[in-house]
Amino acid sequence: MTNQDNPTPAHDRELVLTRLYDAPREKVFRAFTDPEIFKQWFVPRPWTITSAELDVRSGGTNRFTMRDPDGNEYPNQGVYLEVVENEKLVMTDAYTEAWQPSEKPFFTAILTFEDEGGKTRYTARARHWTVEDRKAHEEMGFHEGWGQCADQLAELLIKI
Amino acid sequence: MTNQDNPTPAHDRELVLTRLYDAPREKVFRAFTDPEIFKQWFVPRPWTITSAELDVRSGGTNRFTMRDPDGNEYPNQGVYLEVVENEKLVMTDAYTEAWQPSEKPFFTAILTFEDEGGKTRYTARARHWTVEDRKAHEEMGFHEGWGQCADQLAELLIKI
Repeated sequence: MTNQDNPTPAHDRELVLTRLYDAPREKVFRAFTDPEIFKQWFVPRPWTITSAELDVRSGGTNRFTMRDPDGNEYPNQGVYLEVVENEKLVMTDAYTEAWQPSEKPFFTAILTFEDEGGKTRYTARARHWTVEDRKAHEEMGFHEGWGQCADQLAELLIKI
Repeated sequence: MTNQDNPTPAHDRELVLTRLYDAPREKVFRAFTDPEIFKQWFVPRPWTITSAELDVRSGGTNRFTMRDPDGNEYPNQGVYLEVVENEKLVMTDAYTEAWQPSEKPFFTAILTFEDEGGKTRYTARARHWTVEDRKAHEEMGFHEGWGQCADQLAELLIKI
């Protein structure tokens, strides 16, 4: 993990992570939006994703289930707020579907994909409603977890 | 206020209000989206709206300032989550702009406009993240306040 991978957040409720991938934007974007590819890298191993339904459009639901090494399953559900093909994905856990408030709005993920010297700059910004939630997310291991996933994606992009 | 004006909410975090307007959907929708018309009815009199900027598109900001009879001003800011012309508007105070979390996500407003026997059925659903916030909104006078605004709109629709 380098400073370049974890740039300075824009404000104190934000966490940021970035990677430069040696792949075109279209391919990186597909890894976030094609359920079969997404399942292969979006949780830190040895956890797995057992199912994923990604309705990738503004107001669409994203739903996936994570499984820990003991076989316990953890369902996740959120809504896409903004989708710009091959450029940007914004999703939040503040809604379980359009527009049902969740039990607890925790964060909004703003993912951008930019051309950079023939490669793709991926930046993930996690914005929270409170500083406490940002700190909790950091202590839960945001940088390690999202960082490990980002590295898993780098390995996968070579193969697909 | 009749039962028909305040139908049963879909769940315990929701407040609902409805009106039947003797005007076409396009005209009712315009009253919510044209800042100059919006300013004339969207707060209960004798409060006034001194400015309104309505960027009516998914991810657009709505910003308006209310003034009480003593001249104190109260700025409001939120984001449109979904816009279907002449049919539906969804906005929330969970973001101050796309996609900056606000200090406190309080509610999401789902406004629908439907044809009904040559008139327009307007339904406003206010969905909250907690039952406590729903109760607080009710005690702040949701039905009275939104109801008075809805009646002010009925008067205005005859004139415009």
